[in-house]
Amino acid sequence: MDEIIHGGNVDSIAQKYGYKIEEILDFSANINPNPLPEEIKDVILKNIYRISHYPDREYISLRTALATYTGCPIESIRVGNGATELIYLAIKALNPKKALLPVPSFSEYERALLTNGVQVEYFPLREEDDFKLNITDFLERLKKGYDFTILCNPNNPTGQILEKDELMQILDYASSQNTYVLLDETFIEFTEEVEKISLIREISKYDNLIILRAFTKYFGIPGLRLGYCLSNPILLKKLDLYQEPWSVNTIAVCVGEFLLGYKGYKEASKKWTKTERDFLYKALQEINGLKVYPTWANFFLIKLENTKITLTELQKMLEERKILIRNASSFKLLNETFFRIAIKDRTSNLSLIKELKRLLND
Amino acid sequence: MDEIIHGGNVDSIAQKYGYKIEEILDFSANINPNPLPEEIKDVILKNIYRISHYPDREYISLRTALATYTGCPIESIRVGNGATELIYLAIKALNPKKALLPVPSFSEYERALLTNGVQVEYFPLREEDDFKLNITDFLERLKKGYDFTILCNPNNPTGQILEKDELMQILDYASSQNTYVLLDETFIEFTEEVEKISLIREISKYDNLIILRAFTKYFGIPGLRLGYCLSNPILLKKLDLYQEPWSVNTIAVCVGEFLLGYKGYKEASKKWTKTERDFLYKALQEINGLKVYPTWANFFLIKLENTKITLTELQKMLEERKILIRNASSFKLLNETFFRIAIKDRTSNLSLIKELKRLLND
Repeated sequence: MDEIIHGGNVDSIAQKYGYKIEEILDFSANINPNPLPEEIKDVILKNIYRISHYPDREYISLRTALATYTGCPIESIRVGNGATELIYLAIKALNPKKALLPVPSFSEYERALLTNGVQVEYFPLREEDDFKLNITDFLERLKKGYDFTILCNPNNPTGQILEKDELMQILDYASSQNTYVLLDETFIEFTEEVEKISLIREISKYDNLIILRAFTKYFGIPGLRLGYCLSNPILLKKLDLYQEPWSVNTIAVCVGEFLLGYKGYKEASKKWTKTERDFLYKALQEINGLKVYPTWANFFLIKLENTKITLTELQKMLEERKILIRNASSFKLLNETFFRIAIKDRTSNLSLIKELKRLLND
Repeated sequence: MDEIIHGGNVDSIAQKYGYKIEEILDFSANINPNPLPEEIKDVILKNIYRISHYPDREYISLRTALATYTGCPIESIRVGNGATELIYLAIKALNPKKALLPVPSFSEYERALLTNGVQVEYFPLREEDDFKLNITDFLERLKKGYDFTILCNPNNPTGQILEKDELMQILDYASSQNTYVLLDETFIEFTEEVEKISLIREISKYDNLIILRAFTKYFGIPGLRLGYCLSNPILLKKLDLYQEPWSVNTIAVCVGEFLLGYKGYKEASKKWTKTERDFLYKALQEINGLKVYPTWANFFLIKLENTKITLTELQKMLEERKILIRNASSFKLLNETFFRIAIKDRTSNLSLIKELKRLLND
């Protein structure tokens, strides 16, 4: 529909090659591969009568479940049609004039700003710093007068993080400059010590902070479209004035509530993330021609170096083996040597490693 | 979340009275009561693996099914998170300055215009005309310079229609005045002869027409959030520039495709609508204190007249019997004597009539 490229285009690849969606190994979308609990089927069937009714416009039951999950009060929580809706909504409602955007980062930020008529300037994350944001430089740059910025933590596609004290340093300064901060924590549950990184416990301290979260990545349900945001109630009331009614569908509500209370999922995810991240990092290091950036998330940014094979060739050869990777050259500052892979289950990860070795080590 | 009142708030009523949602007779939302086919469960279970993938951003398969259903080419069709998303999107994308809005009509039109900074003026539909839009007056008024108008056909909450030749007269004139027309046909499949009323076969003739449709009302799935619009491809490309990605969830896609091909549903709905509309119209006439307006849709606008009971009292007494009606006083021009009821199945309709008789005839 438009020019922004994203991962996870399984439909178009399936159509192009005549594959079934189920047989594609999709490393291009950063989704938790931890299998969804079988009970989801029962949850949906039990609640199917609800598709004949409008969703609760205030989404009280889902927000109550999120209050328990996050430890934040229900008044500080809103839900959306994926985090994507909330990105667009926050920008529309807060109506900034000029935004500072660290890049490379998720491309919908820029589109959401531009379609809302916001002037966008970029703050480059440096390759030589492994794309970690330099706080001193960033604060210095904020002095130039921006009323909006978006930080993604961990950052997509680089996998880098800012710790809590670093973020609070930015937020305090941003507050003094009347700069709103949209903090995207949609990947934060993949990090090892969420408490060291997340700012959700600090929302009441700030009048310029909106935190984004989603079920999409961590709970692995991109098809259902479910995100949420946390902020102080006064700021959220500004968003309410602009949010479209009934934007979250009932099936997403029921499945979301169920997943928040499903303990086995969180524990399995935690174990899986650590094990497979370590395993894949080591395995990727053994492949010629790859520079692998350190990550705190469930994906790796990788650069092709010292190899004759081009990214387009690599991507095509993998597609022929039903493996999708994410060409990262559509991210600002990244060129045609960068790609991103999600961390998946062991079997899938082994398949990827095997193919990469075949193509790059031989 | 905001001040606009809608029907269908079963969750809040269930909570207020301690009812189960399933036991509420909801006449407040205009949903087709024709039962959804049991096969929907199988459709969802068969496609449940798709919730782990992003939806196809271009929604090719759903738009193809809609092309077959509507007889319009796929390039002329876009889908949305309910018709609501498409109302907001059209206004944002076309960015009008000044809109003329016939009232009373669906209240989200006004909210969508106002939140997008559009100046709104009202064109009153007259009670003495049974709220039918007077074409001559409307065209005269359009001369005053409006770049946007929204027509709802049949109109919610009045049930009135404009026929095809009347609409084309408006569209031709609107075109000469550079006025975009958003034509909301979300209730049109409840009318007896859709072909006499709908403009979907005429979209290629106009460069100022967007037609809204939805699964919400006719296919009775408000909980899934699924709408679509039809227009010429050039106009739709303007919308594409602003539409948020993945706004329709995968379960809605699968169920929507299934329902479009499910012939039994359409036939049963057609039969039901005519039979129950005629039945309910007659039965309502026999109740004291009600003025019932003629309708072409699946709902009646009703006015309390010559009775001591107030609408608030009536509404409360019905709620205590687990029956919801729609207080229509939140619609512009309508006061605290107007309410709207959906046409439901015979058993439910009989229950409503029985209660109304008890409260008003005794």
